[in-house]
Amino acid sequence: MKLLSSVLSLLAMLFLFSGKAHTQEIVHDAEYYILEAQNGEVWKVEDQELDQKLAELREKYGQPPNIVHFMWDDQPFGAVGIPAMQQIRGYRTPNLNQMAAEGMLFTRMYSEPSCTPTRAAAWSGQHPIRNGMYKVGFPIEYSGIAKDVVTVGEVMSEAGYATGFYGKAHLGDVAESWPHHQGFDESFTAIYNQVVSLWNPQAEAANAVVGLFEEALPRNPYKLDHTFSPKGYVFYIEGTKGGETREWCGIEVECYMQFDKEASKRALAFIAKNAKQKKPFFVEWWPLFTPFIPAPQKASLQRGLVGDAYTVNLDPTVGLLMKTLNDLDIAENTLVVAMSDNGPMTHNPPPGAGLGEGPFRGGKGDFLEGGVRVAAQAWWPGVIEPGQIADDIFHVTDLYTTFARLGGALKHIPTDRVIDGIDQTALLLIGDTHGRRDYVHIYAGPQLGATIKGQYKVHWISSDQSQARSGITSAFDLYNDHREVNPLVVNALHFKEPFRRMRARHEVWIRKYPHMPAASGLAYADIVNPRPETRALSNPPVDFKRLPFDPREVLDELEKLPYDPGGEPDYGR
Amino acid sequence: MKLLSSVLSLLAMLFLFSGKAHTQEIVHDAEYYILEAQNGEVWKVEDQELDQKLAELREKYGQPPNIVHFMWDDQPFGAVGIPAMQQIRGYRTPNLNQMAAEGMLFTRMYSEPSCTPTRAAAWSGQHPIRNGMYKVGFPIEYSGIAKDVVTVGEVMSEAGYATGFYGKAHLGDVAESWPHHQGFDESFTAIYNQVVSLWNPQAEAANAVVGLFEEALPRNPYKLDHTFSPKGYVFYIEGTKGGETREWCGIEVECYMQFDKEASKRALAFIAKNAKQKKPFFVEWWPLFTPFIPAPQKASLQRGLVGDAYTVNLDPTVGLLMKTLNDLDIAENTLVVAMSDNGPMTHNPPPGAGLGEGPFRGGKGDFLEGGVRVAAQAWWPGVIEPGQIADDIFHVTDLYTTFARLGGALKHIPTDRVIDGIDQTALLLIGDTHGRRDYVHIYAGPQLGATIKGQYKVHWISSDQSQARSGITSAFDLYNDHREVNPLVVNALHFKEPFRRMRARHEVWIRKYPHMPAASGLAYADIVNPRPETRALSNPPVDFKRLPFDPREVLDELEKLPYDPGGEPDYGR
Repeated sequence: MKLLSSVLSLLAMLFLFSGKAHTQEIVHDAEYYILEAQNGEVWKVEDQELDQKLAELREKYGQPPNIVHFMWDDQPFGAVGIPAMQQIRGYRTPNLNQMAAEGMLFTRMYSEPSCTPTRAAAWSGQHPIRNGMYKVGFPIEYSGIAKDVVTVGEVMSEAGYATGFYGKAHLGDVAESWPHHQGFDESFTAIYNQVVSLWNPQAEAANAVVGLFEEALPRNPYKLDHTFSPKGYVFYIEGTKGGETREWCGIEVECYMQFDKEASKRALAFIAKNAKQKKPFFVEWWPLFTPFIPAPQKASLQRGLVGDAYTVNLDPTVGLLMKTLNDLDIAENTLVVAMSDNGPMTHNPPPGAGLGEGPFRGGKGDFLEGGVRVAAQAWWPGVIEPGQIADDIFHVTDLYTTFARLGGALKHIPTDRVIDGIDQTALLLIGDTHGRRDYVHIYAGPQLGATIKGQYKVHWISSDQSQARSGITSAFDLYNDHREVNPLVVNALHFKEPFRRMRARHEVWIRKYPHMPAASGLAYADIVNPRPETRALSNPPVDFKRLPFDPREVLDELEKLPYDPGGEPDYGR
Repeated sequence: MKLLSSVLSLLAMLFLFSGKAHTQEIVHDAEYYILEAQNGEVWKVEDQELDQKLAELREKYGQPPNIVHFMWDDQPFGAVGIPAMQQIRGYRTPNLNQMAAEGMLFTRMYSEPSCTPTRAAAWSGQHPIRNGMYKVGFPIEYSGIAKDVVTVGEVMSEAGYATGFYGKAHLGDVAESWPHHQGFDESFTAIYNQVVSLWNPQAEAANAVVGLFEEALPRNPYKLDHTFSPKGYVFYIEGTKGGETREWCGIEVECYMQFDKEASKRALAFIAKNAKQKKPFFVEWWPLFTPFIPAPQKASLQRGLVGDAYTVNLDPTVGLLMKTLNDLDIAENTLVVAMSDNGPMTHNPPPGAGLGEGPFRGGKGDFLEGGVRVAAQAWWPGVIEPGQIADDIFHVTDLYTTFARLGGALKHIPTDRVIDGIDQTALLLIGDTHGRRDYVHIYAGPQLGATIKGQYKVHWISSDQSQARSGITSAFDLYNDHREVNPLVVNALHFKEPFRRMRARHEVWIRKYPHMPAASGLAYADIVNPRPETRALSNPPVDFKRLPFDPREVLDELEKLPYDPGGEPDYGR
């Protein structure tokens, strides 16, 4: 018995403090190495098969595959790709459903709980806790993703890809955070989110609730501070790698309505140009779509903002993308991943924009499955076997590493930090059950909210503030209780210590590879065509000399602020 | 203006008190006539087309089509027929999914909120409020569906069909309620529900909580009344029209485990015999399946009672049914409707038997969509166009009328009462959007709980007892809020009076065609092979002469008891 317990202790030690040297290799989350130690031999054989398959494809097409990452907002698992789930909501997306039928539908694609964190995860291959991008930006934030992050744009660009970004980045308003400064050859970008469609004089006149444009409001005789509310902002920018940054259009409703059309035109032109030049391309196409301003003419039976946006914008755009790839005869050498960035806006939706929960409980901002288990599918005719429904776990960070593998760009991924993204090429190319991840950590802002291992999930914190926050708050069986409503007691006792060890490994690894901060600085700094309002924004709003503290110090302090999701007002994060 | 308002009043009066004579025609709910007045001409043309199609089929096969109504317990919309919705729960039903792909999947099949009411609705074509069958029976109930009800068994039998019943009727323990006394040529029947799988000595020994078998319990020195708890019961019977009723097996666990296998054997033999004799058959096959006793060997990733029952019992049985029909070469002349009888047991499930909610809120016993919008599909190769997802509203009572239409049996439906079931042959044979119903009334026990009209739904009562119970408690838009969580206020004001008029029409019609009572009487009366325990049940448990009231009067009073779902303990109705 004594020997056995020594062996067990030793094993436990090994699980906590792996001694393996990882220099010059991509560093993953600690949990990955537990899986690799058990499955590494199988993976090695699969990897040889995959290398051969990719080499054959490269031989056939004379270049590595093109990649399009198409991502839109706020939709739960089931929102696209499953016709019956659409009919109960009164809209249809025939093109997206065809794409799913011809490709792979994911039942366990996990995002981060909200827009900015998911986009940061896709760019960095990291949970955004690791690079300071765990909160959602609104005008004016004086912040953004740091230049030290090695984005997927930089990785693919290094490997010789033409890289283009079209749509909503939502990753900062400081210059270093913008796509064309983060590895993309060209970018046409919205730097905030859809709610800003209400922040303009027309919507102000129609809704008179935002209060951003004072000329539409009666004079407020009680007002003492004219600097608190933003006085204007920049929403759309365009730029090229090494070139200029220009503001596009303005902030009027017409600009919003035109933006996606223009993004679509530029994305398709970029695809066509590179296809003709036989240059591999990597495109991130992340449309804005749903405006918060309702249109009088409805397009779906549902008649909500989302149903209409799907019918009029999302689905036809995806149809156009597929048609373009087919017409250019490059569909069989192009991987398209189409997905939502987080769960539905169940908490504070504008009327008709919620869509409500999918089969899972919760929505945007929650670490419940409803917040992070999103609509997602992959399409690569002739390579991904059609009609698959993959129940393997896939995390949005895995796209980073998988895209790099497909593009021969793994060597450009930095090895001095944790990359959470795992190479999931085997899942895509060999098929369902060949995923390489059985876990997900879900951060709620800067706190670890929940951890998934296979079909089990623990909530580390609870929305019930009266519960103790130490140890595991609740454990759930996602097959038998997919809505996370009946915490397991007896049935999960044997997982309590394994889950705690798993978290301990994760924390040990964070101490070894510490988090990096987000960037902070002046907003809109390098725009060459500022409007008078934009230019005014760079003037100090008050005479700094009249303040007893230094406002620049305040900007630096911003990123260090505590952030508690329990105490955070729900802005529709 | 005055003229207009007179015309409007007149119209309103007409909607409330239709003057049309309905003698010798099937009488429907008042709402149907509002639809018929607007769509009757189109329906007439469709009906000619349908008559011709049915005549051609009859010509081709020399008989009207066979019909199999296959119905199991407690599963929400999405539980079968949609593979991605199964994978998130860890089970698969390849046969049922193939059936859905080859046939029509219903997104809006409405049942009654629990077992007995749905089964009574299928038999009678009526909301069970109309025949007293709105509550769920448990041993010993001394009650059941009345002989005055003209069941679908009687209707089809009158039209020359061979009629067989196999499985769980759950429609009473008085003799007149049993299938072979209600129009079925032969029956092999469970007269109560699955929870009774725990009411036997073995489960008593294993669980020691039911307390039915006192020999397994310590003597209770506080016990004064030895009559309160049932002293035994009959679960399975077999019988033939005009013949004997026999108890089958007993109440042991082994009987439970054997019952579905025996039902399957008998159902398939009945089908084969009639196919060979070229006699049209009507089969109701309503299996028990899920026992509440867990098995040590698990069959599904989910490992719950439902996942295992699906994997081991439900899906292979459906596969066997399809294979049998194909092997007998009668699939193209046989309609199979496969469905659940109500929503999932979300409130008080035995461990692993819940499956949790589908996309809708609520479950068994609720008038929420989750209680009544069930998994359902229809299969008729060569006749029903494959791959359809029908979003028309279909109510379980419609099966009664639709089966009669297909079997040439409409003339055997009684015309002296309201038949809620509508002929939905057009939906099946012409296709999606050709349904003839845009409404459902949902009764919660004897109270009208909610009413659906198209995409809108009102809750007439609320689970919140503090709310006033007059008028509409809440209105919901099922496309935009399929979980019924955000009551409409401004957006539904224009529907308030139309919904109230709709209810008024419904009530006026009830006054014209009053409800009938359920049967009451002694349980197990005509069983020819009673066990000693069964025989003992017909002995008075106490000396009636020592009571100051007549126990037979109590039985008569049973059916008149008030029944308030708000006040009713939730027995897993």
